[in-house]
Amino acid sequence: MGSVRHMKTIRLEAFSDGVLAIVITIRVLEIKVPHDTTPAALIPLIPVFLSSLLSFISIGIYWNNHHHMLHTLQRVSGSILLANLHLLFWLSLVPFATGWMGQNHRAIALAALYGVVMVMASMAYFILQGRIIAAQGSDSLLRRAVGRDWKGHVSLGSYLVAVLASLRSLAIAQAIYALVALLWLIPDRRIERVLSD
Amino acid sequence: MGSVRHMKTIRLEAFSDGVLAIVITIRVLEIKVPHDTTPAALIPLIPVFLSSLLSFISIGIYWNNHHHMLHTLQRVSGSILLANLHLLFWLSLVPFATGWMGQNHRAIALAALYGVVMVMASMAYFILQGRIIAAQGSDSLLRRAVGRDWKGHVSLGSYLVAVLASLRSLAIAQAIYALVALLWLIPDRRIERVLSD
Amino acid sequence: MGSVRHMKTIRLEAFSDGVLAIVITIRVLEIKVPHDTTPAALIPLIPVFLSSLLSFISIGIYWNNHHHMLHTLQRVSGSILLANLHLLFWLSLVPFATGWMGQNHRAIALAALYGVVMVMASMAYFILQGRIIAAQGSDSLLRRAVGRDWKGHVSLGSYLVAVLASLRSLAIAQAIYALVALLWLIPDRRIERVLSD
Amino acid sequence: MGSVRHMKTIRLEAFSDGVLAIVITIRVLEIKVPHDTTPAALIPLIPVFLSSLLSFISIGIYWNNHHHMLHTLQRVSGSILLANLHLLFWLSLVPFATGWMGQNHRAIALAALYGVVMVMASMAYFILQGRIIAAQGSDSLLRRAVGRDWKGHVSLGSYLVAVLASLRSLAIAQAIYALVALLWLIPDRRIERVLSD
Repeated sequence: MGSVRHMKTIRLEAFSDGVLAIVITIRVLEIKVPHDTTPAALIPLIPVFLSSLLSFISIGIYWNNHHHMLHTLQRVSGSILLANLHLLFWLSLVPFATGWMGQNHRAIALAALYGVVMVMASMAYFILQGRIIAAQGSDSLLRRAVGRDWKGHVSLGSYLVAVLASLRSLAIAQAIYALVALLWLIPDRRIERVLSD
Repeated sequence: MGSVRHMKTIRLEAFSDGVLAIVITIRVLEIKVPHDTTPAALIPLIPVFLSSLLSFISIGIYWNNHHHMLHTLQRVSGSILLANLHLLFWLSLVPFATGWMGQNHRAIALAALYGVVMVMASMAYFILQGRIIAAQGSDSLLRRAVGRDWKGHVSLGSYLVAVLASLRSLAIAQAIYALVALLWLIPDRRIERVLSD
Repeated sequence: MGSVRHMKTIRLEAFSDGVLAIVITIRVLEIKVPHDTTPAALIPLIPVFLSSLLSFISIGIYWNNHHHMLHTLQRVSGSILLANLHLLFWLSLVPFATGWMGQNHRAIALAALYGVVMVMASMAYFILQGRIIAAQGSDSLLRRAVGRDWKGHVSLGSYLVAVLASLRSLAIAQAIYALVALLWLIPDRRIERVLSD
Repeated sequence: MGSVRHMKTIRLEAFSDGVLAIVITIRVLEIKVPHDTTPAALIPLIPVFLSSLLSFISIGIYWNNHHHMLHTLQRVSGSILLANLHLLFWLSLVPFATGWMGQNHRAIALAALYGVVMVMASMAYFILQGRIIAAQGSDSLLRRAVGRDWKGHVSLGSYLVAVLASLRSLAIAQAIYALVALLWLIPDRRIERVLSD
């Protein structure tokens, strides 16, 4: 049965990689060339470029962590497949939530919407992590690797604060979003460390 | 010859995964940000969001079942390749049929069109299943796994009823569509059970 | 070196599969829902649907044959990589050439353009086939599998005739395009036969 | 640990292939059929076609070199993952920079923008190459393969010159862009040579 289980993990990773590859590149589809092409006309592209970059970094971080997490997986069950689809659904909304914020960075509704999508994606990630740990049983490799997972909990809490903050001050909400992205740019060595023990 | 046959299955899965990854994410491409960005202006996005979710779930379920079905496959023939392409064609129309229904959920023609696409996809799935069972011969692993396949037949019948119902009552048709999706959200343990025997 | 060569072939196939998965599904992106949604308003969608189907079949056939051809490949050289990219370029134009013909099936220029793209794709396929046969040397598995390749030559000749015919009669050109697609729908058993000897 | 490291490399390649497959085909999405479909009306499509071809060749060359470079990689670290994402980000902007230049080939700002994107992509490629060489230590296979890397340095320098030149003469800038693409069309045999030693 070993190779059968193995194949299932490979196909789950391949499908997730396909979806994430589309999600990470989809933002550039929305970049439109200005009709007026003087150098000054390129200035309005700057927020669009920055929001593309934020989207790329966010999805890239999720791909990176997802890649590490699935690495500990030996056996794919139906509930792990569903939890993975659920995560992919929320991640596929990230480029649009980011893009909307880039188009109109003064709109409270859009900044809050971005936060809601990030909260749902974080929660979907926790659910998938929980399913994998449950499937691995009491000596779960992933549970040891993740430990108390302060980074995951800090991110989720920060996004919740940012959604509420966006109703008062857009600047505070956007600062929190940027800080959480920076927090994750430092690669997650926890799983690598346990795997290499 | 073992590894040669094996490679063919891998490439068939990889290509199908690529197509389904695109099909499952393509719906989000159609979500447009409203120009008016007050919180109230986000309300019209709700049916679009729900139709995206329905499309994501439908394709996710097909990917899940397709993944299980191809798992039993040892050898790819020309007719299996064609039957697989035929299934992918109808599945690639699902996001659009769903999206159209989301854009205008009062249009009878669009609700019926969605049902027609789902009927064709179901039939294409049955054809592919039949081809694989035929190729596996009298002791087909897939035939034992699928058994009498009541879920597949109930879905196909329900979609046919819904297409007819949509001419009378859109609400009944849409309720049937939602019920069939729910029916499949419970993961299909039949193939897993036979494989783990 | 065996596994190194092997990995190269896998990655060449994976990249080609990714490109072809996008190319085969891209056509549906162009299908737009009519604003008027009475059943009668769906009629103009029929040529769009038929051209999507023709594009899907054409790319599906190329994927099928490409899949068989690369199966005979043990070693990837720089010139094979370039010949493969060249083929992918022309294939990526197929959905658009098909779509344009579907949008305006009375336009001579578009029917001729479709033929030109199909001629270039056929020629790119021959070039790639030639590179692989040359790399395999005098006892080439692919050369034995392909034999005199009457189907490839008949297709290329037919497309050339259709380009010229489109200047006189669109109906003749379109009939030739349909006949060539039908010719290839019968799966190519030549390579399978030699491989299973 | 061997197979674990190996799997990481495969998934890094698969994700990169997915992104590059989308990036290389995305340009054709922007090709729009003219409403007027006389043969003369196809003439404005020529610069669009040429810019699609330039984009396809540029991404194809990067895929080819990336494919060779990752071939020498045994172990994926967090910093290599980030350097790879950084490269993919700039490459995902190439089709748009190329497309903009195709839409309006007289705009100085767009020609300079294309050069800036190519400079950033070249630098991201050097950074990834440096990370891999550093990870491989003193007897790095990649360092031996790349040698003094005159082609990489000549390209980067040429792009910098072209960005400055575009402020004076668009023709000179565009000639440099075409020459650099031609320089790379000759496949890079350096890594192949060292690997086959």
